Amino acid sequence: MELHVVINGRKDLAGQLYKQLRGAIESGRLAAGMQLPPTRLLAEQLGISRKTISDIYAQLTYENFLIGRVGKGTYVNARPSKFLRKQTASDLACAETVNAWRSLHSPLPDPSLEGTVRRDFVGGATSKGQFPHDEWRRCTQYALRQMQKSVGFYSHPEGLPALRSAIAQHIAFCRGVICQDSDVVVCNGTQQALDVISRVVLEKGSIVAVEDPGYPPARLLFASQGATVVGVPVDKEGLRVDLIPDQTRLIYVTPAHQFPLGMPMSHERRLALLQRAEELGAIIIEDDYDSEFRYEGLPTDSLQSLDERGLVAFVGTFSKTMLPELRLGYAVLPPAISEAVMKAKQFTDWHTSTLPQWALAKFMTDGELQKHIRRCHSIYAGRRERILSRLNGDLSPWLEAIHTTAGFHIAALFKHPIDLKLLIELARKVEVGLYSIEGFFYQETPRSGLLMGFGSIETLDIDPAMDRLRDLLLQMDER
Amino acid sequence: MELHVVINGRKDLAGQLYKQLRGAIESGRLAAGMQLPPTRLLAEQLGISRKTISDIYAQLTYENFLIGRVGKGTYVNARPSKFLRKQTASDLACAETVNAWRSLHSPLPDPSLEGTVRRDFVGGATSKGQFPHDEWRRCTQYALRQMQKSVGFYSHPEGLPALRSAIAQHIAFCRGVICQDSDVVVCNGTQQALDVISRVVLEKGSIVAVEDPGYPPARLLFASQGATVVGVPVDKEGLRVDLIPDQTRLIYVTPAHQFPLGMPMSHERRLALLQRAEELGAIIIEDDYDSEFRYEGLPTDSLQSLDERGLVAFVGTFSKTMLPELRLGYAVLPPAISEAVMKAKQFTDWHTSTLPQWALAKFMTDGELQKHIRRCHSIYAGRRERILSRLNGDLSPWLEAIHTTAGFHIAALFKHPIDLKLLIELARKVEVGLYSIEGFFYQETPRSGLLMGFGSIETLDIDPAMDRLRDLLLQMDER
Repeated sequence: MELHVVINGRKDLAGQLYKQLRGAIESGRLAAGMQLPPTRLLAEQLGISRKTISDIYAQLTYENFLIGRVGKGTYVNARPSKFLRKQTASDLACAETVNAWRSLHSPLPDPSLEGTVRRDFVGGATSKGQFPHDEWRRCTQYALRQMQKSVGFYSHPEGLPALRSAIAQHIAFCRGVICQDSDVVVCNGTQQALDVISRVVLEKGSIVAVEDPGYPPARLLFASQGATVVGVPVDKEGLRVDLIPDQTRLIYVTPAHQFPLGMPMSHERRLALLQRAEELGAIIIEDDYDSEFRYEGLPTDSLQSLDERGLVAFVGTFSKTMLPELRLGYAVLPPAISEAVMKAKQFTDWHTSTLPQWALAKFMTDGELQKHIRRCHSIYAGRRERILSRLNGDLSPWLEAIHTTAGFHIAALFKHPIDLKLLIELARKVEVGLYSIEGFFYQETPRSGLLMGFGSIETLDIDPAMDRLRDLLLQMDER
Repeated sequence: MELHVVINGRKDLAGQLYKQLRGAIESGRLAAGMQLPPTRLLAEQLGISRKTISDIYAQLTYENFLIGRVGKGTYVNARPSKFLRKQTASDLACAETVNAWRSLHSPLPDPSLEGTVRRDFVGGATSKGQFPHDEWRRCTQYALRQMQKSVGFYSHPEGLPALRSAIAQHIAFCRGVICQDSDVVVCNGTQQALDVISRVVLEKGSIVAVEDPGYPPARLLFASQGATVVGVPVDKEGLRVDLIPDQTRLIYVTPAHQFPLGMPMSHERRLALLQRAEELGAIIIEDDYDSEFRYEGLPTDSLQSLDERGLVAFVGTFSKTMLPELRLGYAVLPPAISEAVMKAKQFTDWHTSTLPQWALAKFMTDGELQKHIRRCHSIYAGRRERILSRLNGDLSPWLEAIHTTAGFHIAALFKHPIDLKLLIELARKVEVGLYSIEGFFYQETPRSGLLMGFGSIETLDIDPAMDRLRDLLLQMDER
């Protein structure tokens, strides 16, 4: 690799090089802090004497473009850079398409805001303190050894065979999902699984039915693909199957732990959903995002295990059991769309990076995932119990918890109207992170309530946080 | 995490559990080789006595469904599984869309075929022997420490700031690309960069101009998004800009090292291309896939560095400088589409896995990438020289090398008609892997030639391989 310099002919080499270096620094192409090549190397590269290059470096150093560090070499000095860029989206033939994307609301929180509140009921965050870093390091070292053995080319588009097999066993064992290794495709989290499935199912104007309230990133993704997204209300048994519109091609549901309200879909509703999908010739995506954590009642069958016709694509993630930033998830595909989805995954990004895939496969086959889930389960169970006992106790004048059996968040609805925006603001001032469920409603009228995640908040912080919440509610009542 | 068992009421617990376990094994839900939970744990989970569970395990073991391993526990015995799945693609409302995906030709080679020929001129594979595994391991350990420090949530959709900054410096330094860190989006290789850019630029029926011959995965990806893909011929100076159709929205080019023929795009042609794109209001994707390796002549400016209007999205990959299976690449986005593409990346898979991102950022800022590229460069230069000297020497009666200045493959055209399929077949029998360029032609009449990659083949294997190639060509002439 060489410093990019263009020399024309052999005339005024020093002058040419000086102007180019200076120009590159002025334009910001050579950024502040970058090291320049040693004079010897640059001399060889350009066929210019080393002395000439030393002189140019000295001149640029004198002019403050460069800075020498004794024994360490020559660096580009700090200096603001600027570029002229004139084209705007409206100049482009694709202006409309680009602007549609730009106007999409971004549902992902700004990562720099995370961890700024001490007692944070944020949803989706996992219990970082419990993560077995030593075991994960050992598995990553195994992954590095596996990569060293590979042939230096692309890997399997559907995922590493070892990981697909580990996933098939994991979900058969703890979620009752019936599948073979070859039905599993490894994706970069749930989001990519949704993307590759919906790509092969939808075209412009296709109808997608989603739960309302529901998971915004799924809805926005389907809309970005040109689909017509219809919100279907939920009740205590889950999705109102009778309200799924005709012509629906794709139905997106969270039966184990409805997002965000939390209730499981009843058995009767599940059977009705399967029948309705069959009538429609529709595909169902079952998003089983956090149901490894189940606290009470008998296990409910996954939709996939009730499906005898091959209508259900079962989607899961390791963002909840492991870490979100790993970006590992999977889909179990019904035969009718399996080949097409595998192709879509391939055209999207060839395959998921092998380094985290190998590490996770080892982590699972060594039984570390089971151990880790068991540890987190007992911690989450304790946190959940604390939150529920407060919601059903001294907070019950204001809030009502929705009954859930799984996952690591609870939704609680306000019994009386409240200025929720103000409450959230006041809570943040006393180091309590609260989150409204309002933004999860789509076409339905939003209900007023809180989504209380307990993945991130420490167990000992829950009671103090609930105390503060109660005090704030009392204060607000008095006004 | 628990074994998924559904118990109804308290009647005949033993019978219920027995039937469910047996059913789960027969259906394959409990796969061969899986370990069953210890009797104590299952007893606790289900509220059944431990003795009852031991009896059931014993019965199932007697029936060969389970197998006990002394001191290790109870496992599911080997047994074929089968599932009834009835729905086919044609039953679905989305049958047409699904079938379009299924019929896509898959351009990715089967990874299990890689490395099966000793002297392999396969393109795209990197020199695995030179990869600095020790340094990469050190950087991965750094990555693990960084992840341990993070808050356990999602990371930045556009990529880790440290990696975006390292990429901006790298391409400014060695490719003359002018950009700021905030213009860079980290993607899972070139393929995802193409996907997220084309998503926000194209809609159904939009015209995309691609080089013909060209890179099939790009063409197929654009087509899968509903675009009308037009092949534009190339000549010695690169893309025939005068033949780019009106209404074109997106132009995909490989100016540094035309894929697959290898010639660089001339300076005049580059300027003409920029002007044409401006007239059209089109976006240009400059795929700079392997131009870190440059062997002769003066560096050509990247299109991006000549672009003063913000028309060019510069796309690069670490598949060629590092390893393809890492799946790391990037795009430098022009302002008009930057925000939209960042959104598309986010909706596609939130962000690229942080583990390889942290490792690569460290690898780059420590100067390891530069060192590695320098090492590979000198090796590739030697291989290239051997191939060219043979093509221009004793193989010149049959083949003519196309002039290239960069990359790690050479295209050679046959001077006379030949049964290329037969040649490839015969070569494989003497452990020489040859690859036709025919499949890279789209709407143009294919020319007969070879794509000779030198990333994978060892330097010392080149002359023996060329000897065999010459002998086969002599033999075929004699027939």
